[in-house]
Amino acid sequence: MNEFLEQLRKQVPGLLINTEAAYIAQTCTDWRKRYCTTALAVLEPLSTRQVQAIVKTCDAFNVAISTQGGNTGLVGGAVPVADNNAEKRPHVVLKTGRIREVLKLDENNLTLTASAGYTLHEIQEYAEAHGFLFPLSLASEGTCTLGGNLASNAGGVAVLRYGNTRELCLGLEYVNAQGELCGDLRGLRKNNTGYDLRHLLIGSEGTLGVVTTACMKVYPAPKSRCVAWLNVDNIQTAVDALGFVQSRLFGELSGYEWMNANAIDVVQTHFPARAPTCPGAVDHVLAEFTSLGSETALREQVTRTLEAMLEEIPGVRNIAIAQSGRDIETFWALRENISEAQAKAGLNVKHDVACAVSQLPTFHNMALNDIAEHGVDVQPVLFGHLGDGNLHFNLSAPTGSDSAEFLKQHQSLLNNLVHDAILRCGGTVSAEHGIGQLKAELLRDITSASNYAAFKAIKQAMDPKNLLNPGKLVLL
Amino acid sequence: MNEFLEQLRKQVPGLLINTEAAYIAQTCTDWRKRYCTTALAVLEPLSTRQVQAIVKTCDAFNVAISTQGGNTGLVGGAVPVADNNAEKRPHVVLKTGRIREVLKLDENNLTLTASAGYTLHEIQEYAEAHGFLFPLSLASEGTCTLGGNLASNAGGVAVLRYGNTRELCLGLEYVNAQGELCGDLRGLRKNNTGYDLRHLLIGSEGTLGVVTTACMKVYPAPKSRCVAWLNVDNIQTAVDALGFVQSRLFGELSGYEWMNANAIDVVQTHFPARAPTCPGAVDHVLAEFTSLGSETALREQVTRTLEAMLEEIPGVRNIAIAQSGRDIETFWALRENISEAQAKAGLNVKHDVACAVSQLPTFHNMALNDIAEHGVDVQPVLFGHLGDGNLHFNLSAPTGSDSAEFLKQHQSLLNNLVHDAILRCGGTVSAEHGIGQLKAELLRDITSASNYAAFKAIKQAMDPKNLLNPGKLVLL
Repeated sequence: MNEFLEQLRKQVPGLLINTEAAYIAQTCTDWRKRYCTTALAVLEPLSTRQVQAIVKTCDAFNVAISTQGGNTGLVGGAVPVADNNAEKRPHVVLKTGRIREVLKLDENNLTLTASAGYTLHEIQEYAEAHGFLFPLSLASEGTCTLGGNLASNAGGVAVLRYGNTRELCLGLEYVNAQGELCGDLRGLRKNNTGYDLRHLLIGSEGTLGVVTTACMKVYPAPKSRCVAWLNVDNIQTAVDALGFVQSRLFGELSGYEWMNANAIDVVQTHFPARAPTCPGAVDHVLAEFTSLGSETALREQVTRTLEAMLEEIPGVRNIAIAQSGRDIETFWALRENISEAQAKAGLNVKHDVACAVSQLPTFHNMALNDIAEHGVDVQPVLFGHLGDGNLHFNLSAPTGSDSAEFLKQHQSLLNNLVHDAILRCGGTVSAEHGIGQLKAELLRDITSASNYAAFKAIKQAMDPKNLLNPGKLVLL
Repeated sequence: MNEFLEQLRKQVPGLLINTEAAYIAQTCTDWRKRYCTTALAVLEPLSTRQVQAIVKTCDAFNVAISTQGGNTGLVGGAVPVADNNAEKRPHVVLKTGRIREVLKLDENNLTLTASAGYTLHEIQEYAEAHGFLFPLSLASEGTCTLGGNLASNAGGVAVLRYGNTRELCLGLEYVNAQGELCGDLRGLRKNNTGYDLRHLLIGSEGTLGVVTTACMKVYPAPKSRCVAWLNVDNIQTAVDALGFVQSRLFGELSGYEWMNANAIDVVQTHFPARAPTCPGAVDHVLAEFTSLGSETALREQVTRTLEAMLEEIPGVRNIAIAQSGRDIETFWALRENISEAQAKAGLNVKHDVACAVSQLPTFHNMALNDIAEHGVDVQPVLFGHLGDGNLHFNLSAPTGSDSAEFLKQHQSLLNNLVHDAILRCGGTVSAEHGIGQLKAELLRDITSASNYAAFKAIKQAMDPKNLLNPGKLVLL
């Protein structure tokens, strides 16, 4: 393939082409180190134009392209599939992190237009410096990029109020499998002129095109914040309490996180923060409210609503409202450190599931019952964005047992039981992490034949040579 | 085609098949009576299953299908194209108005699931009876159906706060060109498992499938409402005032409608309502606010904000806040009667355009200048959903002249000038009305080759025989 690289150098002047073995190996290893594959070269274009020239050259030489943003994905979507995966063609990795041509804000249109290579954190900061909020927020925000967020339709902690990446996007430009520029950046809130290419690209995980620039919504930055902690009997109470709060403070509620007793136990074992407790109550909820009005007014509204809830919703045992910035930090630390505390406690079997909010209690009980019926002794460490119907349904080994051995013995069965339960409850096996290569076979197995045929038809129509991210999302 | 109809009767027991000439003619005439075409028969299925059987039979006999909801569309999308439009195959009209199998609400998931045949008004009322708001609202809501709203991605007066039909949909089921059921009704707020078929179908105007059921978002019903009238210097002031209001009352603002002086003049000539006026101010804005809190608190917030705006935004001359339900009715009557007042005043050249809110003043001045430079004497009656960047840019004949003659002479030139200006400002020639058959050639002419190729590839992949709504939206 020397000829290919030579042609690339000729066709794409100024392109960064890295063929160093160590750099390729690092780039072809995913975040969780589950996939360690390889590629001919790592290409790092500086512009949309260079992306077009790369795709055209790859097309001419039949070289497959794995697009990569910040490489923080959890399903192997950003690294090439292994050769033995029926994909014998040479691969390049196209890293979009250096595409930083555009970053601008239109105050009157409440939009921000940015190149794919900016990190989410950079975009948040840019909006903030102009007095606006870019609400997308996730654990990997310092590293993940806008391009990757769009390709994977990233979710995170502000979905309840502002939606996923999909709902925040008013338009995008992408380079298609033929190297042509498609889409638009007009930032229109009303536009009925043809099929919605934007939404087809969002969440397509690099299999239909390479997103190079996008026009995103921004919001006026909130001026006040109020965070409350609820002690509740169980997940059904948490769902009932959510309905009560939404009927009164729908516009103010920006986060609603549920945690079971094990989740709080494990985080308190490994971190100093302590949760408000109440005799008899088992589970916990963190509710965050923000507004454009004064802190005093917001706190007064929240207090009044939650006190009424304490009276009216059986199973809500106690409410605690953060009295200081320090309290807010403590409450959020409890929620945010669960994953790290779990890691310190040993390995566990993770699931990223979602269903209708109303179905969450049914799913929760069904999955735990099924596991018990199969005689598997587990410690369920359950938490998540209950307001979005999204749970991180993590299953740890019982205290004192060998967690590696536990995984080896039970992971496959537990995956099957949890996925089966969520599907029976009308839910999804991938709420926010996507499909990539990890779940491509699972997706094929659980999707209706007619829907999967539509996926294949779309992929074949838009990328007939299967040049873009072969082996990911949809299997041809 | 007797054999086809016979087969249909056999394959789809209980199907309503109407072949009466008068009924066919009426069904094949669009709302504005611009298209009077014909069909073999009008089919009115009662269920999704019947739709599947119809499509399969049409597929077998190569009979094209025009899907029709309430037949209130404005671009000829719901009636068959004429035979002379290179479409020689027989057509049937598939009316979805009798598909009323499902109508239910999930209070904890804030979703409503309904069959395609329910009218928008029925769905609004059903939500209201359960204490919720289904926010989609348009002039034709008594007649248009959910299926048509989804196929055309209907907009209307609540887009600023709640989005278009697209943003309100969490999932849909549709019958594809092969007669198979696709999509889903799970009502998930987070789900990253494959290409987004929902968004591909929404706005596809019946060319990719027949929407039969959908799962839509509902919201807690607002408890209070406050409507204000602003007298402003010009459209730029209206844009500046919007920014001011959104920075303080983003969550409460639910409508922001701008009207120029001619629009208010024509409505006051033909209707009794009178707008607040102020010496020096030319244009008008109606701003509506709603909340889940008390009327008093909302009114106090709005008053405080608008008084500060009067101080800070030059060009805002006067604010009037409705003091009673009657005042609210008067304010909305002024806005809502403009179209009817225009109809009473004679014919006019209509445009449904949108661009970034920040670009509206540039577009407005550019279009009027271009028209003046071409020496056309017009009376611009301009109004619209300024908060969404969407204007109804209507051009009337000068007072006293013959409006039919005016249209005959100038319509084509005025269309070209307005469309050219909106495109130069990064806008769209169809904000909410869609493409149908009226704008199919225009769309082909103004869309980039690579985007149009994507439209064609998608259409051909999903409907290879071009069975569904041929001659609409995308021309093959």
